[in-house]
Amino acid sequence: MKIAVLGAGSVGQTMGAALAARGHDVTLGIRNPSGEELSRPRSQAEALTVWQARTKAAVATLSDAAAGAGLIINATQGAGSLEALTAAGAKNLAGKVLIDIANPLDFSRGMPPFLIAGLSGPTSLGEEIQRAFPAARVVKAFNTIAAAVMVDPSLIPGAHDLFIAGNDPDAKAAVSDLARAFGWTNIVDLGGIDGARASESLLPIWVRLYMTGGSPLVNLHVARA
Amino acid sequence: MKIAVLGAGSVGQTMGAALAARGHDVTLGIRNPSGEELSRPRSQAEALTVWQARTKAAVATLSDAAAGAGLIINATQGAGSLEALTAAGAKNLAGKVLIDIANPLDFSRGMPPFLIAGLSGPTSLGEEIQRAFPAARVVKAFNTIAAAVMVDPSLIPGAHDLFIAGNDPDAKAAVSDLARAFGWTNIVDLGGIDGARASESLLPIWVRLYMTGGSPLVNLHVARA
Repeated sequence: MKIAVLGAGSVGQTMGAALAARGHDVTLGIRNPSGEELSRPRSQAEALTVWQARTKAAVATLSDAAAGAGLIINATQGAGSLEALTAAGAKNLAGKVLIDIANPLDFSRGMPPFLIAGLSGPTSLGEEIQRAFPAARVVKAFNTIAAAVMVDPSLIPGAHDLFIAGNDPDAKAAVSDLARAFGWTNIVDLGGIDGARASESLLPIWVRLYMTGGSPLVNLHVARA
Repeated sequence: MKIAVLGAGSVGQTMGAALAARGHDVTLGIRNPSGEELSRPRSQAEALTVWQARTKAAVATLSDAAAGAGLIINATQGAGSLEALTAAGAKNLAGKVLIDIANPLDFSRGMPPFLIAGLSGPTSLGEEIQRAFPAARVVKAFNTIAAAVMVDPSLIPGAHDLFIAGNDPDAKAAVSDLARAFGWTNIVDLGGIDGARASESLLPIWVRLYMTGGSPLVNLHVARA
């Protein structure tokens, strides 16, 4: 499948590499392929150069990446996701499955981050993306775990869960298939895209468990009677 | 132990009854023992009458209940907890373990509730209670599950967790002992009282899992590598 991964951070690079390794035709979409994202900070630029050499994946503008893809993954920073998706172009998102991995995190007071006021509480980033791009088939998924765990749940032993939410059942089924290809067996469907309020709210506990336990290899499992 | 349970809702009644059944000397503290809380709504008043007949526990003002107790449980509604604890009296809380079970929920837009803006994000109800009553030994606990599960975790099979947070290690040890008496074996220490941000943030996912699964007998378990 032709997949656009929007965002060149650790989530975008990890997800892109894992999809490329499974034979997908991956294009990494970034704001300015010849500009600042490739040169600043230097460590990220170097990581991206290594990433390209390893994956043989293409790098393009947000718009070009989205235009050519059948499935789109939003791995941009949550605070800038609506702007980045606007740059990708509503027409390039229309009718396509859009996996939203971003979290609306406010780092203005340092660590730990907290949820951005206008993108939490009675709404969520996932909902606002669906509202802004009504023709996209938004599925919130993969946003509650470390990047490495997203594409390899076996890094954490025992039962633990992937949370998904979205309005389009077929889109959720497609995302679930993709997750199962990564090894996910426990997929918890939180219902419509307003379920993103619930999964985005897991960030504070995830960050806290990371801080208190000293490892990002931590996740949650739903226990029911 | 002499325990004051502040709040006559389902959490207060369930916690109070379970503690009384274990031999503790329980007093239920409410705003006006002879007034509106006993008569409005009628179903709550009737439930409280039955509760008193069953438990033989005393009912007193918030202040009188707190004054006579060695351990205090805040089971009031989160939106009114700071006011209720002020009515209970700072001097009656000083030096005592104060278990905060309340969640700062905003029901102004109906169901599902979301976290109250001024009591979430870069703070939490647990922290604000500790800040308002610095001499109290606040432990956030029991706030992430249904009332029935708080006092009987065996209602949900398999491993699932109780989250606690607080600045005073001895107070947390006392609350952990109390939890173990209810049958809790997995107690996850989230560190200082700012860990309440993490456990209070679990409310949106808990409510969502309740809604999508149709049962309040649901909880989470932390999986680590």
